[in-house]
Amino acid sequence: MSKVNIKALADQLHLSVSTISKALRDSYEISEETKKKVLDLATELNYVPNPYASSLRKKKSKTIAVVLPEVADNFFSLAINGIQTIAETKGYHVLIYLSHEKYSNEKVILEEFQSGRVDGVLISISSETNTSDHINKLHANNIPVVFFDRDQDNIETARVTTNDFECGYMAASHLLEKGCQNPAFISISKSLPICLHRIEGFKAALKEAGIPENENQVIDCTDEGSNYQQIKKILQSENRPDGLIASVEKIVTPVYLACHELNINIPRDIKVIAFATLETAPILDPPLTTITQPAFEIGKAAATLLFKGIEKSTFDLKKERMVIPSVLIMRKSTS
Amino acid sequence: MSKVNIKALADQLHLSVSTISKALRDSYEISEETKKKVLDLATELNYVPNPYASSLRKKKSKTIAVVLPEVADNFFSLAINGIQTIAETKGYHVLIYLSHEKYSNEKVILEEFQSGRVDGVLISISSETNTSDHINKLHANNIPVVFFDRDQDNIETARVTTNDFECGYMAASHLLEKGCQNPAFISISKSLPICLHRIEGFKAALKEAGIPENENQVIDCTDEGSNYQQIKKILQSENRPDGLIASVEKIVTPVYLACHELNINIPRDIKVIAFATLETAPILDPPLTTITQPAFEIGKAAATLLFKGIEKSTFDLKKERMVIPSVLIMRKSTS
Repeated sequence: MSKVNIKALADQLHLSVSTISKALRDSYEISEETKKKVLDLATELNYVPNPYASSLRKKKSKTIAVVLPEVADNFFSLAINGIQTIAETKGYHVLIYLSHEKYSNEKVILEEFQSGRVDGVLISISSETNTSDHINKLHANNIPVVFFDRDQDNIETARVTTNDFECGYMAASHLLEKGCQNPAFISISKSLPICLHRIEGFKAALKEAGIPENENQVIDCTDEGSNYQQIKKILQSENRPDGLIASVEKIVTPVYLACHELNINIPRDIKVIAFATLETAPILDPPLTTITQPAFEIGKAAATLLFKGIEKSTFDLKKERMVIPSVLIMRKSTS
Repeated sequence: MSKVNIKALADQLHLSVSTISKALRDSYEISEETKKKVLDLATELNYVPNPYASSLRKKKSKTIAVVLPEVADNFFSLAINGIQTIAETKGYHVLIYLSHEKYSNEKVILEEFQSGRVDGVLISISSETNTSDHINKLHANNIPVVFFDRDQDNIETARVTTNDFECGYMAASHLLEKGCQNPAFISISKSLPICLHRIEGFKAALKEAGIPENENQVIDCTDEGSNYQQIKKILQSENRPDGLIASVEKIVTPVYLACHELNINIPRDIKVIAFATLETAPILDPPLTTITQPAFEIGKAAATLLFKGIEKSTFDLKKERMVIPSVLIMRKSTS
């Protein structure tokens, strides 16, 4: 008896090869009724998948994509290095795509992946992204996706992040311990979960310390072009904060420059702490206290998870959650 | 009369469609004799290329590749932004590939492009690369290539760089003006033309000032893992330099940290200048004098040139040279 292949199943059921293939992969595109018909016949004829064809189908590109908002941030450079370490051991190429913090770019990039250009996607979403349709489409095409660092709450997918809530809490508690009574948090997004979780942690610490909420506690720096002016305005306001938490690396330079220009001494007049992996943190004037994210490790863990999903289609990637804690490194800016 | 297409030419000459196509594009793979036969018949039958097919063939990927040694460097982040500005206006995707300073990676990456995955390549070579076979193969496949920042002397291709010799000269002259008598240059490669040109400029300025050459004037920091120890050793040597030129951004942090640890005051005991686009340069302790490369502009110019090559096959890209000068920004580290 000749070997039963997908073509034979297709001929006998008067369906296309592609439909049979999708039914066997349990694709959402195929009705339950058709799936049952295909599986019944496959069992009856003792159909065994061709492992070579399957591997060709599954691993044809030997490439994974990393979608990032930007590369200027040292965090993402380190994360890329972590990802590459794993990809190299697997013999995979890594392609880097930049969304430049725009949802529209991110959407176009992800649409391109549906054609099978890459075998899996690691993504850190743009600060604008607040929908998940584009991610769901990848799932529907059986392309594994792992979020890292910046994720989205309302979607079921694997993710590797740091402990953002705890870090916001830790940053605020540190400022309070050092004597601040009116700390403020500088945020770059009103929708990005990492920002929101950090802010929640920040507010929880303030509440615990009995500091009442006020509208100047969270400062929005959502427009890069005007960050410097925005920060200067806050530093010149009547109710000037005595502590600042910079939610991302790129806020650090405008904060320091504004303080220098206004003759506000760090740490005497204002204490500064930043979420940053900045290599120059220890040589700044003054050296900067940081909440340092394990960027390299996050990249490594996210890539490891992605390859599990690429290599074993039975592995339920979507349920995976991994949290790698950040570390507070105290330097002079908060002493 | 039906329209004459490539297929008709192929049938009449008993050649393959691909041979006709290559002959019409003046490919090196086709003999002069065959090219003449094809062109003669094309003229005779009044063959007009189908612009749509031609556009499909020429622009099928709508993607350009940017091959970089790394992204941790702020220079490359800014250059990528410059490149994207142009690519966006052309409706092109930008893919970023990292060589991680390894020739072997660079070679594998470029081999992949030969299949037509991208329509053009912008490349800044790894610090290891000293051969050009991999670049020549792209040329042979009619894939336009533009070097930016880091190029290679012994190959004919378009390039956009900064004025490296003049910058080395300018950095050395600045240190001499500020009173240094024994400046040293910290290099990261013994083969990279940008390093060699900067060193030549440095030496030319020293020679002009009558400072004799010595073997400690050029310090090799080719192994990132040991840079800090290497720099400390130099700062503890008997004939300690009184001025340092950091050839790249990533040398800055180990230099500052080593000086802090050894209680060597910048700028009193040693003056420091760096080739860097470091955003934190003005907030370092002390603020860092930089030779700031026009990274964004270099990226923009290189992409503009590449698109000329992609859009007009008659444009002789290889002859293009563009030099965008860097600027010395004086800060306290050399005052």
